[in-house]
Amino acid sequence: MSQIVLAVLDGLGSFVFALSGGVLGVQKGFDLFGVLLLSFVVAVTGGITRDVLIGSVPPVSIASWHNLAIAIAGGLLTFYVYPLVRSRQRDVLLFDAIGLAVFAVTGTTKALAFGIDPVMAAVLGMISGIGGGMARDVLAGEIPSVLRADIYAVAALAAGAVVSVGHVLGSWPAGSMLLGAAVCLFLRLMAIYRGWRIPAARWRDDGSK
Amino acid sequence: MSQIVLAVLDGLGSFVFALSGGVLGVQKGFDLFGVLLLSFVVAVTGGITRDVLIGSVPPVSIASWHNLAIAIAGGLLTFYVYPLVRSRQRDVLLFDAIGLAVFAVTGTTKALAFGIDPVMAAVLGMISGIGGGMARDVLAGEIPSVLRADIYAVAALAAGAVVSVGHVLGSWPAGSMLLGAAVCLFLRLMAIYRGWRIPAARWRDDGSK
Amino acid sequence: MSQIVLAVLDGLGSFVFALSGGVLGVQKGFDLFGVLLLSFVVAVTGGITRDVLIGSVPPVSIASWHNLAIAIAGGLLTFYVYPLVRSRQRDVLLFDAIGLAVFAVTGTTKALAFGIDPVMAAVLGMISGIGGGMARDVLAGEIPSVLRADIYAVAALAAGAVVSVGHVLGSWPAGSMLLGAAVCLFLRLMAIYRGWRIPAARWRDDGSK
Repeated sequence: MSQIVLAVLDGLGSFVFALSGGVLGVQKGFDLFGVLLLSFVVAVTGGITRDVLIGSVPPVSIASWHNLAIAIAGGLLTFYVYPLVRSRQRDVLLFDAIGLAVFAVTGTTKALAFGIDPVMAAVLGMISGIGGGMARDVLAGEIPSVLRADIYAVAALAAGAVVSVGHVLGSWPAGSMLLGAAVCLFLRLMAIYRGWRIPAARWRDDGSK
Repeated sequence: MSQIVLAVLDGLGSFVFALSGGVLGVQKGFDLFGVLLLSFVVAVTGGITRDVLIGSVPPVSIASWHNLAIAIAGGLLTFYVYPLVRSRQRDVLLFDAIGLAVFAVTGTTKALAFGIDPVMAAVLGMISGIGGGMARDVLAGEIPSVLRADIYAVAALAAGAVVSVGHVLGSWPAGSMLLGAAVCLFLRLMAIYRGWRIPAARWRDDGSK
Repeated sequence: MSQIVLAVLDGLGSFVFALSGGVLGVQKGFDLFGVLLLSFVVAVTGGITRDVLIGSVPPVSIASWHNLAIAIAGGLLTFYVYPLVRSRQRDVLLFDAIGLAVFAVTGTTKALAFGIDPVMAAVLGMISGIGGGMARDVLAGEIPSVLRADIYAVAALAAGAVVSVGHVLGSWPAGSMLLGAAVCLFLRLMAIYRGWRIPAARWRDDGSK
């Protein structure tokens, strides 16, 4: 059962990530195919990077066409009803937080299953969650937003850390995953609605504060 | 025999891709080594990405120095006789179309040989064809041209799709590859000489058309 | 013994690369987590790329948390005492040259141990050395400095070439590595203190010199 829940959430995460790629593609004036390509890249880059690094080759998103289909659905939706997606930007942010949480906990779980050190498994969970958005921003000619502001990567890392700590302590895996996802969601919601931030670098270039 | 023809075409494709990297490197004022590095990246990134994703490691372009030598030849030629390459830009576009077609059909064929799902094999053929150019544009600080305009990635995907459909139907592989390459070439020629385009996103940022 | 020396130098290289990531992150105004993320990327991308390409999966920097810890130390140092790191920029350049030399010779040695062709092993050594800095510049929205100027990638390649030639001639490996590292260091020092350069492309866009 939980396998099915995870697969559904994973698909939902891919779909929302594809929407975020599609929105940026439309804003940059890409053609239809460019929008679909960007949607696909955002939906699958995090998971593909994780799979290549842990030696799970071919990666899930290459071995099967399911994530491709989900990404194309997200890209087409954005391309043809952009105003709707745009006006739902806040909902997209919410779904994106869910996608991030799911990718982080499933990514960490998969890395642990491949025998990766728990600390690095949490990092791989984070990479699963943020890789797509980083690729999206680089391809669109922008500095990845995850580097600059906002509680985003750190929320994914926290989720991964919860799963890894649970693994080391021998807890019930589904419990750790739920708790990890909840931590990630909470941090994202605080960032979105309360403006929580991580301190930025305080130095001016001449070395003064 | 057809193995030799393929190897020759593959080398020709690498060479032309290297030229396109060299031209951009010279335009950006890179030094000799930067131009050669960019030529190498454009020539091999697509194939390396495909090989890593299907689990064919070390990738062809890493296991042997042949593609390196071809890329260096292309880079040196551009660096030292840039005006000649530049004045032949139209010919370079033609050869580039040949390179794209060859990479797409050989990439799809290789992915199928590694047991990849036919739909994703066509996508991997496309990645083989467009990966180098995408890396070139990102490294040169530009949004990949393949995302923005032109019938380019879609031509590579069409070639891969023909090969994959042929594989599923059990057709003669060389026939599918020839037909796929012809479709890709046709689409590229129409794009270059007739200005065929894919519709771009029609939305303004406020959601109006 | 030499294993320990290599590990120490490798750690030193990772640390200095992390500093260079941290400095750029602070200059771009990234938040603390962004600075740490960039430090990590710069410290490990070269080695991870090499390991994925030669089939040594999971890569060293993913299998163990040591390089992560080193990168975080470098990133934290830069974030909290930026003026100190900044005022020691010249020293950082020196350490960076050491890091480049170490990564190039260890990278080539590892590639040779995995049975890679000697020419390509030298290229993989170069990739180990320059990969992190290239990722750093792309993520920060800049054209990789290694493409534009300076004797940098070519110094790493020279180091790799010395190791590969030594391997083919059957020389004492540690001797080749020392000589290779010395060549790399010498070239870097000449570039930093004497302004040695590689000729840049001489053509204007209209084809005239």
